[in-house]
Amino acid sequence: MTPPDTQLTVACIQMEPRIGAVEENVRRSLEFIGIAADRGARLIVLPELCNSGYVFETAEEARDLAEDATSGPSVQAWAEIAARRDLHIVAGLCERAGDGLFNGAVLIGPQGPLGTYRKMHLWDQENRFFTPGDLGFPIFDLPFGRVGVLICYDGWFPESWRMCGLQDADIVCVPTNWVPMPAQPAQRDAMANILVMAAAHSNSVFIAAADRIGTERGQPFLGRSLIVAPTGWPLAGPASADQEEILLASFDPTEARRTRQLNAFNHVLNDRRPEFYQARQGEGLRPSTPARAMPLQPVT
Amino acid sequence: MTPPDTQLTVACIQMEPRIGAVEENVRRSLEFIGIAADRGARLIVLPELCNSGYVFETAEEARDLAEDATSGPSVQAWAEIAARRDLHIVAGLCERAGDGLFNGAVLIGPQGPLGTYRKMHLWDQENRFFTPGDLGFPIFDLPFGRVGVLICYDGWFPESWRMCGLQDADIVCVPTNWVPMPAQPAQRDAMANILVMAAAHSNSVFIAAADRIGTERGQPFLGRSLIVAPTGWPLAGPASADQEEILLASFDPTEARRTRQLNAFNHVLNDRRPEFYQARQGEGLRPSTPARAMPLQPVT
Repeated sequence: MTPPDTQLTVACIQMEPRIGAVEENVRRSLEFIGIAADRGARLIVLPELCNSGYVFETAEEARDLAEDATSGPSVQAWAEIAARRDLHIVAGLCERAGDGLFNGAVLIGPQGPLGTYRKMHLWDQENRFFTPGDLGFPIFDLPFGRVGVLICYDGWFPESWRMCGLQDADIVCVPTNWVPMPAQPAQRDAMANILVMAAAHSNSVFIAAADRIGTERGQPFLGRSLIVAPTGWPLAGPASADQEEILLASFDPTEARRTRQLNAFNHVLNDRRPEFYQARQGEGLRPSTPARAMPLQPVT
Repeated sequence: MTPPDTQLTVACIQMEPRIGAVEENVRRSLEFIGIAADRGARLIVLPELCNSGYVFETAEEARDLAEDATSGPSVQAWAEIAARRDLHIVAGLCERAGDGLFNGAVLIGPQGPLGTYRKMHLWDQENRFFTPGDLGFPIFDLPFGRVGVLICYDGWFPESWRMCGLQDADIVCVPTNWVPMPAQPAQRDAMANILVMAAAHSNSVFIAAADRIGTERGQPFLGRSLIVAPTGWPLAGPASADQEEILLASFDPTEARRTRQLNAFNHVLNDRRPEFYQARQGEGLRPSTPARAMPLQPVT
């Protein structure tokens, strides 16, 4: 059994930011953070762009709502509560850095900001406003375990989760603004949730994904935040599609390392065969590239 | 609308092979193939090791049940029906090749065997009997589209599906012998199905997975074969956990290429950022390797 003192309580804040209302959004996030801390949370995940809102109309609007990832007012407010309540917080942030505007996420600890993640795969109209992430996939070595960060559409790329797994992340925190996917059957889990469950299982990592709710300038969001175990199965959630709520789950993050060994023969990372994972994109359809089939003699 | 003549009907044969009963297993597979062909199927997928059974007790037993991937009696029988009924068949086969014993799959067309796939990621006791696959991830250029093949535990590695996607496979055929995963909640899709749905969605490929059923020498199998669209959603199945059955779905395989473009900005393969996918395994936990966090000034 895991000794109680290695247990970490993680919270995902599912909330509805309002476009442009940075002060109000941050004030409300602080209320949710306070409630989660009262319930024992020590690592708290907030949605993507939770200070600014998501559906920008112009690059100027996005830039006006952005701030510096250490000295900005939202970051300062989160750092204050993190210090006061002894928390780590991962919050989606509209980040300005020099000439760059990033769909970012800050990781803040009791001693202040620890680093930033910048969304590596930009979705749809984000490409009009944001610079693609330029920091790769940082992993943060914290007292309770190793933390990776991804944002929303990053999760559509198995490579994103793999980069966390290969760098021995124990838990991946996902600020997100999931939008509905086409043809979603009512009786099945949302595709965004399916991708999270598959990634947790394939890499043996915990994943804490905090989504937003509501409809902003005509764009609906999915809700359905969730916290999953390295088995891939939810520990909390999926949350509702339309309610603000706090998900909580308690576990030892380092358990993720042990569950990578599946049996006497198999380990989810050691069993990779990277020497065979070398295809270049579009290789198959280039006229000059023969299909890689092994030619065999037809039966006579 | 897709013109009718580009439609392909694909069948997955969910059946129960008996360990050691090669002749009976192949005879029964031919019955199922005949029924599927009567129903219009032109591409037919059979389970992993469907000629030999799965739970070998010794390497000798496995070797005695293996055969050559072109001249073996199971392959000859499948080639005969493929020629007579104008079919393509993907069948899991216990394959002997020189000194090597492989968990293989043969692709057979109306003109005879076209090639073989050899399972790249061996599960559990298979490591006692089989040589790991040495052919990588071949893609077969067929009249109706481009076909990749994976077997069972290969699907736990997102890289396997990605290799098919990057080589422009339209459909991935998966002979499999899925076993139950730990802690499967009754109300959710099986994890094996979740991995298939996530892979189809992430790569925009059709996937046809034919599983076995039954319990062999104490090892239960999962059933729940399925055929999924590039959206990730099932077109047929998941099948039952315990009945022999034939799944059928009709579609234009090349539709998978068109659905890779998600909107004006996004393409599931073009949006990859391979220059950032370079972590080596275990990089993070090496004492000499600093965490890849961007150090920031603490708030003062």
